[in-house]
Amino acid sequence: MALIVQKYGGTSVGSPERIKNLAKRVAQYKALGHQVVVVVSAMSGETNRLIALAKDVSAEPDPRELDVIVSTGEQVTIGLTSLALHGLGIKAKSYTGTQVKILTDNAFTKARILDIDQHNLKKDLDDGYVCVVAGFQGVDEDGNITTLGRGGSDTTGVALAAALKADECQIYTDVDGVYTTDPRVVPEARRLDKITFEEMLELASQGSKVLQIRSVEFAGKYKVKLRVLSSFEEEGDGTLITFEEENDMEQPIISGIAFNRDEAKITVLGVPDKPGIAYQILGPIADANIDVDMIIQNTGADGTTDFTFTVHKNEMSKALGILRDKVQGHISARQIDGDDKIAKVSVVGVGMRSHVGIASLMFRTLAEEGINIQMISTSEIKIAVVIEEKYMELAVRVLHKAFELDIAS
Amino acid sequence: MALIVQKYGGTSVGSPERIKNLAKRVAQYKALGHQVVVVVSAMSGETNRLIALAKDVSAEPDPRELDVIVSTGEQVTIGLTSLALHGLGIKAKSYTGTQVKILTDNAFTKARILDIDQHNLKKDLDDGYVCVVAGFQGVDEDGNITTLGRGGSDTTGVALAAALKADECQIYTDVDGVYTTDPRVVPEARRLDKITFEEMLELASQGSKVLQIRSVEFAGKYKVKLRVLSSFEEEGDGTLITFEEENDMEQPIISGIAFNRDEAKITVLGVPDKPGIAYQILGPIADANIDVDMIIQNTGADGTTDFTFTVHKNEMSKALGILRDKVQGHISARQIDGDDKIAKVSVVGVGMRSHVGIASLMFRTLAEEGINIQMISTSEIKIAVVIEEKYMELAVRVLHKAFELDIAS
Repeated sequence: MALIVQKYGGTSVGSPERIKNLAKRVAQYKALGHQVVVVVSAMSGETNRLIALAKDVSAEPDPRELDVIVSTGEQVTIGLTSLALHGLGIKAKSYTGTQVKILTDNAFTKARILDIDQHNLKKDLDDGYVCVVAGFQGVDEDGNITTLGRGGSDTTGVALAAALKADECQIYTDVDGVYTTDPRVVPEARRLDKITFEEMLELASQGSKVLQIRSVEFAGKYKVKLRVLSSFEEEGDGTLITFEEENDMEQPIISGIAFNRDEAKITVLGVPDKPGIAYQILGPIADANIDVDMIIQNTGADGTTDFTFTVHKNEMSKALGILRDKVQGHISARQIDGDDKIAKVSVVGVGMRSHVGIASLMFRTLAEEGINIQMISTSEIKIAVVIEEKYMELAVRVLHKAFELDIAS
Repeated sequence: MALIVQKYGGTSVGSPERIKNLAKRVAQYKALGHQVVVVVSAMSGETNRLIALAKDVSAEPDPRELDVIVSTGEQVTIGLTSLALHGLGIKAKSYTGTQVKILTDNAFTKARILDIDQHNLKKDLDDGYVCVVAGFQGVDEDGNITTLGRGGSDTTGVALAAALKADECQIYTDVDGVYTTDPRVVPEARRLDKITFEEMLELASQGSKVLQIRSVEFAGKYKVKLRVLSSFEEEGDGTLITFEEENDMEQPIISGIAFNRDEAKITVLGVPDKPGIAYQILGPIADANIDVDMIIQNTGADGTTDFTFTVHKNEMSKALGILRDKVQGHISARQIDGDDKIAKVSVVGVGMRSHVGIASLMFRTLAEEGINIQMISTSEIKIAVVIEEKYMELAVRVLHKAFELDIAS
């Protein structure tokens, strides 16, 4: 007998029919003697509908009240899911974030979980109930309803699994696992049976949207065994995300190719090469709450340097405005350019730690296709390059093939 | 400075525009220096949508889970209403039943209020907030969400007014007060400035649907000053429902004419006139949870009697079946008839206690129109008759005129 937390996203609970299907799957696990906690999102489209309603009343809704409104989406789903389980003769009980007591801070619309009271859940599980918990929401110490922000249902699932010391946290989505890359770009993409947390983190942050990065971090921190599965397919074990790096001779060097076309590149040209420049450029950007991803600085021969970084496309013009207004004159930069026609492509794999030649294979492969590399950034388990956006799919395809990801290891 | 509880029904919060109008009215009261608690229902149509969703998943939804689902309707409205108040620069905060702590028993879908914690509300009111409370819902002692049943938002408003010792509980509806009778039937019907609780109870139970009868009982019990107003008109003081019977010489004898075509009449003919017959007839009806309204028994000369009572139209055939299967043979009744083509018309007024001649004026007026009276039932402040359904509107009109209700007193 195991204790399993299953999290179902918005499309998995998108209609009464799908909720009944979900209940059948839970029933299978119960029939095997497992204890099951189900975490559900709002029905697909519902959160957007509620936000639109709030914006009809107020252009900038107060975050506390927005959370009161938006949290009803999951509350409806927990009730419906419990009803579907009853329909199969399974004892089930719904829990709002307040009822579990998923304690968060009071940062409305983006709260962080501080503690989970497991008393009631444990008691009901021991009494044979399936506990159906509203994802994405919690309660602060004053009893205010909070939400964890978009995608927070994954985090709820992982946090519950951690608090209850569950044997596994299963994340059901509309894909059947984590792939070597997006199958819509590379039809030969393969599902991975297993992936390490670090790889998953890189894949998630590099744009593979299977799991919210925050939930993966959470799972890593609390050593929760995560599994990504399809809610629409009966068969398949999905992808297990392990927190242990196994000494497996068969372990492939590279686990996947991630890509992301949401970023824009900003280059500050002809900056005097002296201490404090990076801070002078990025300080005002950080003060404006603009997240920066890649940062590169290269010293030239003439005592000046070019400084390049990437931000989200939506924030490029804001960042350019700040640099031109507040920074350019100050640091005597020659020119400041923005380019949002770029894409980032990354090769990810724990295996590359101990393997030389990954970078050279990557660069050679791109060169053979005539794809120019604009920026390079590396970590222990990934190499990311920025290229012209129009070459993105091509780059992903040729790299997938070059690293033999289409061939089962 | 007064403390006022305002309750707004589903049509009053039926759209973002209407919610903004509601906020303007609250703003007017705040501008006068009053403390205001607002109780809101779900947006019109929302409760039915949620119930339909639940029934899509389960034909007979578990009541606990149904309450979890349905209570989200009001939760959305409290958030939206608070946002609309913020938009007018008014401090406002929403409260679910759980957050106020409106403690109820655990009779899901028809819970009764046991206690209201006024601590948080009082504190926020004193800090200048408008408190926006979800009607229709509460929480049991185990933290389960409960609902008070249909129309329960009126009860929430009255119960809050009682707990907070409010100066007045204002019920905003789509009519601008209580009328001498339904203006759709009698265009000359007049709005009453004032009505006693007892009269209101009779009018409500006799079919005048302005207020839920349960909330009127509650208001009477806790001596809450109730006022019925229109949420769509700027002017007018509506109708005040007073718990004190004023010694007012001007007090009219009759306050209104109520009517109801939802009932059906069942007659058990030729029953032996002996003790226990009434119980033998009505016992099995009560066991089947069928509510009985009027009951009449008249002894004939031949040692037998006819026994007549009314039930809701929807339950006539069920009641007839029970009587014919389980009762008729047992008590040797000659015949059992049902008639759902009836209507009940009542004349209501505290004044009739001290006035003779009300009944005779009523009966003469009906006789002059050739309307036959099938049943008569009286209380201290009302006389109700059952007549053929097709004469109902005519009866209401001629009685309204005969008692001079079209003439302002």
